[in-house]
Amino acid sequence: MVKLIYVISRKEGMSVADFQTHWRETHADIAARIPGVRRYVQCHTLPELYDRETPPPYDGAAELWFDDLDAMRAAFRSDETAAAREDELRFIDHSKSFLIVTEEKPVIE
Amino acid sequence: MVKLIYVISRKEGMSVADFQTHWRETHADIAARIPGVRRYVQCHTLPELYDRETPPPYDGAAELWFDDLDAMRAAFRSDETAAAREDELRFIDHSKSFLIVTEEKPVIE
Repeated sequence: MVKLIYVISRKEGMSVADFQTHWRETHADIAARIPGVRRYVQCHTLPELYDRETPPPYDGAAELWFDDLDAMRAAFRSDETAAAREDELRFIDHSKSFLIVTEEKPVIE
Repeated sequence: MVKLIYVISRKEGMSVADFQTHWRETHADIAARIPGVRRYVQCHTLPELYDRETPPPYDGAAELWFDDLDAMRAAFRSDETAAAREDELRFIDHSKSFLIVTEEKPVIE
């Protein structure tokens, strides 16, 4: 299995609460339609960590699992991914977000 | 549960193969001793992705789950975390690595 970790920053000027609400309540359903996604977990940076002098470096990470690299690449070419990317323009700053494509090595399960 | 995502870069000049081997075969056992860790998964950037014009932005992410923020903070203060940090000097570039502290919102399980 391939695990995609998409580390994301919210759009400039957007509140953390609005970002998290849009991500969870609107975007989740749109991204869940991407073909070949075996598992999809949103990891939201804890809201209480924004009250400190040094703000968190990123607002969260979306994690998506695919059978293999080919399945992930096919997913990227799909209309459903295009729709998800379009919705992302409403809450994600693409210039401050990035992907890593990984394989899991469990140590403690 | 709190999920810590530690996005990491290998030390300058280290090969991807050596980095992945040290992380999996030496560091995993050291980090697994940190108290309060409920789950621990290493996510290794796929080796085949290093053969391209644009190298991956990071070499992977370590994910550790704790019962709550207090448990994570107690873990950070432990001798076992100090030992893990010391071992990290052998393969991780701390200046190009960062933590995000999150809560999981599962969408597709």
